[in-house]
Amino acid sequence: MHTYNQLSVSVAPDVVLGENVTIVQPCNIYGCSIGNDCFIGPFTEIQKNVTVGDGCRVQSHTFICELVTIGANCFIGHGVVFINDVFANGGPAGGDKSLWRPTKVGNHVSIGSNATILPVSICNNAVIGAGSVVTKNITVPGVYAGNPAKLVRHL
Amino acid sequence: MHTYNQLSVSVAPDVVLGENVTIVQPCNIYGCSIGNDCFIGPFTEIQKNVTVGDGCRVQSHTFICELVTIGANCFIGHGVVFINDVFANGGPAGGDKSLWRPTKVGNHVSIGSNATILPVSICNNAVIGAGSVVTKNITVPGVYAGNPAKLVRHL
Amino acid sequence: MHTYNQLSVSVAPDVVLGENVTIVQPCNIYGCSIGNDCFIGPFTEIQKNVTVGDGCRVQSHTFICELVTIGANCFIGHGVVFINDVFANGGPAGGDKSLWRPTKVGNHVSIGSNATILPVSICNNAVIGAGSVVTKNITVPGVYAGNPAKLVRHL
Repeated sequence: MHTYNQLSVSVAPDVVLGENVTIVQPCNIYGCSIGNDCFIGPFTEIQKNVTVGDGCRVQSHTFICELVTIGANCFIGHGVVFINDVFANGGPAGGDKSLWRPTKVGNHVSIGSNATILPVSICNNAVIGAGSVVTKNITVPGVYAGNPAKLVRHL
Repeated sequence: MHTYNQLSVSVAPDVVLGENVTIVQPCNIYGCSIGNDCFIGPFTEIQKNVTVGDGCRVQSHTFICELVTIGANCFIGHGVVFINDVFANGGPAGGDKSLWRPTKVGNHVSIGSNATILPVSICNNAVIGAGSVVTKNITVPGVYAGNPAKLVRHL
Repeated sequence: MHTYNQLSVSVAPDVVLGENVTIVQPCNIYGCSIGNDCFIGPFTEIQKNVTVGDGCRVQSHTFICELVTIGANCFIGHGVVFINDVFANGGPAGGDKSLWRPTKVGNHVSIGSNATILPVSICNNAVIGAGSVVTKNITVPGVYAGNPAKLVRHL
């Protein structure tokens, strides 16, 4: 038999949880802070130092990496992936976290399923269409869609 | 230790299954109907009131939401995500299911991996390319690809 | 109660593993070969006959299908999906593997999260942007992004 370093997903004891949080397992959640009245779907991963505000839904299959901050009352769809490493030097930053960049999501933001979120700032009340790739800061509320995501409708 | 409402994925007892269905766990399948001779891969979620016809394959990492109906002999690739809420009012419908919209997939439809399917109707024998975002009804058999998906080849 | 053929994900005994491999479960890994010093994240599937070279990271939610060969020191992001069946005859190849096509990823290749990789060859040192759909061979090192992926920056 082969041998390997075997880890398993968990809701780690160091996670800070608010009141009335529902988590569907299996999921991999560690070192982060999740506010009151949140729902976290299955097959999700939320990494350390992430903050998720009150009243958020994080749907199944979503991955939230370090350096992401999510405001209150946000909806993060299924299969959404956040990114902190843009391969600035032509490849992964590896252990050099000085190359990582943060993402800040405001309040009442809705991110459609299968969206990909590069390290950006997204303002309050923005709506990101399903399957979009967000590559730039979003500073005006509206509906953004496409690859790369562009404003398709004002709100 | 923190406390939270802990749920786990399952194949719920209320699922209606045909003959000769294979399911790879873990997956989260509840309240739906799955026909004969289907294969359901791991890390999938199929919500209540979904119907999957006979002879379908639903590959790993795929999410099928409420109000989706899939015909017979369809191939749903890996990481495919269906959507019923288009944020019509600038945000999630939440509990107001009157804002949700249905998706109907015909027979012998093939949906490539990582595709995103907005609430649409897809005709028999259509082929959706991998990574596509389908935003409009597909009424003519053919190969559709891109974001948004467009006809790239007649069949 | 319904009955069905119940399978579960695993790291199968037939997997060939190098030294110092870390695997986060649950994942579905079978019949493949994984080199030394690799990391395999949770919610991944790696199919039979896949080869992953030394020093690679395969992040969470990624699916690597048969006929994929990955070189050394590659970074495969989260939610990446490889494809071997391009529905050449207007639908899935099914059991006819003569219709499947291989993918070869070189060394020091970085593939961004949520990327979709059609059956292609990717040269050493290429960088694929997050959310991209790679439809053609990549023969010149550089950064490729979009759907379909195009060269956006030389390295």
